[in-house]
Amino acid sequence: MDYDRYDRVRAVQWQGDHLRLLDQRLLPREEHWIDCRDSADVTRAIRDLVVRGAPAIGIAAAWGVVLAARQGEALDPALAMLRAARPTAVNLMWALDRMKARIAAGADAEALAVEAQAIQDEDLAANRHMGELGAALIAPGSGVLTHCNTGSLATAGFGTALGVIRAGVAGGRIDRVYAGETRPWQQGARLTMYELVRDGIPAKLIADSAAAHLMKSGEVQWVIVGADRIAANGDTANKIGTYQLAIAARHHGVKFMVVAPSSTVDMATPDGEAIEIELRDPAELLTTAGQRTVVEGAQALNPVFDVTPAGLIDAIVTERGVIEHPNALAMQAVFGR
Amino acid sequence: MDYDRYDRVRAVQWQGDHLRLLDQRLLPREEHWIDCRDSADVTRAIRDLVVRGAPAIGIAAAWGVVLAARQGEALDPALAMLRAARPTAVNLMWALDRMKARIAAGADAEALAVEAQAIQDEDLAANRHMGELGAALIAPGSGVLTHCNTGSLATAGFGTALGVIRAGVAGGRIDRVYAGETRPWQQGARLTMYELVRDGIPAKLIADSAAAHLMKSGEVQWVIVGADRIAANGDTANKIGTYQLAIAARHHGVKFMVVAPSSTVDMATPDGEAIEIELRDPAELLTTAGQRTVVEGAQALNPVFDVTPAGLIDAIVTERGVIEHPNALAMQAVFGR
Repeated sequence: MDYDRYDRVRAVQWQGDHLRLLDQRLLPREEHWIDCRDSADVTRAIRDLVVRGAPAIGIAAAWGVVLAARQGEALDPALAMLRAARPTAVNLMWALDRMKARIAAGADAEALAVEAQAIQDEDLAANRHMGELGAALIAPGSGVLTHCNTGSLATAGFGTALGVIRAGVAGGRIDRVYAGETRPWQQGARLTMYELVRDGIPAKLIADSAAAHLMKSGEVQWVIVGADRIAANGDTANKIGTYQLAIAARHHGVKFMVVAPSSTVDMATPDGEAIEIELRDPAELLTTAGQRTVVEGAQALNPVFDVTPAGLIDAIVTERGVIEHPNALAMQAVFGR
Repeated sequence: MDYDRYDRVRAVQWQGDHLRLLDQRLLPREEHWIDCRDSADVTRAIRDLVVRGAPAIGIAAAWGVVLAARQGEALDPALAMLRAARPTAVNLMWALDRMKARIAAGADAEALAVEAQAIQDEDLAANRHMGELGAALIAPGSGVLTHCNTGSLATAGFGTALGVIRAGVAGGRIDRVYAGETRPWQQGARLTMYELVRDGIPAKLIADSAAAHLMKSGEVQWVIVGADRIAANGDTANKIGTYQLAIAARHHGVKFMVVAPSSTVDMATPDGEAIEIELRDPAELLTTAGQRTVVEGAQALNPVFDVTPAGLIDAIVTERGVIEHPNALAMQAVFGR
């Protein structure tokens, strides 16, 4: 397929001596770039959601290690600080482990930059491959629903779940695309719709709570989402709301696909019970654009991920292949050591 | 119970010669009142969501007929205009039918005001009774989740689903209250939290999409919602997202209760398939506080109601009693002519 058509956004850009990040908090209203010059800058950008999306977080963190080496920072504390920036995304840990192994092998800043660039390039290649693999599962004429943002903004480019949607639209398999808003941070409304409109892919935004009603209407054949961590039995942590979509999909006989690079798979985590779910500031629910929208004194509970059990997933797509009806045995066959 | 404690909000107030409505679009930030002096004012207020909630809409419309009579308007066109203001809420049709019957019987403006006041008073009494009936179904120590706003703001006072929650908290049966935001209009975030905080009822706001995750944690034993229309077989139209909650509740063995006055029951509608689902302006999803938050060129689909099939409902509570496991036969026994 014509990948260049979908190569318009690159949210994580190495500039030779610093890292440029597209500030995803301000999209789509403003395309503002933030320059990171040391590992603390990158840590802050990850924690504050300047950069988000599990693969993009891993790539940014790898460049954070390069910056630490260039600045002569003590590398172990820098790695620890970056590692603690977000707890749920395993790609972050995976990318930092790769960088750490290169450090242990005596790599200097230049050699670390080669490794970070490799992580970034491999992610883009994986996404293109997963796009083809996932799209092949979809019958022509289908409608799909996605959640959060899993596109070029969340990865090195093309995207994971959104990559499958791009490949499916390009290949004539997908006729209708729906995106959930993804409260509270509105990744679907702000970011996914931004990417889809830029690519000229016709899509409709829905409230997260309208998904089951839409499924009942027969307009959706697949729900396609990304992942922040996939456990050894196929249980998948992803953006809050994913689990609710999986339950609704099963209720309606709608298929459910998880798309993520193998770096998202954590064979050291036996199942979803063992995944730490990040709770973020209740203010994300209580305020809008800095203004209080809920009455003073109100409390909120703001888990930003949930776990979808493998039993509700029809297919996990990684660059290593498709696992249908995932379970511990099938996962072990592909990802076991 | 001490009802006065919960009698602090009255959103629909007859002032002797005009109708005062608390503008629910501006809550909780501003308590602004709008004065309606003819039926067109009331129609606009219903259509633009100054007043919302099925019972409150019916009450406001009844006063709209009183205003029409006082102003010497032609009554048939006034009734037709009010009737068309919102398509899904059957209480609107029910209240207007009651007023129409009084007109047919020769009632003047003063007699119509007596009827409108009766509709309002009966709604408050029904809510208090339903509160007791619904709370009796809940085991002590329970957690509950509600959706949209079904409180004093949505009714003549006390509320339907929120009335059950108030009675359940007052009676020591409910320990934990969760409210979904209810996108796109945020009735849960803006209005339900406003009522709960004013009443001193501890509650937590969640994103609509966090409901299944919360249910999995075991914190919720009942989902309690209102209704805009209940069909003859028990299928229930309510705020978008209700159906999705019902599916998630059944998946987790959480019970699901619908609370609504009998004026919400429409025995002329055989089932949910026959209920018209109101689509509102996509701008409700594409803008926030008048500002575009989604990229230009993006489309949205904005159904504001959905239908929960009777099979997913454990109990329908009206002032006439509780129907457990509702179906056409059970409904006929209570609401048949």
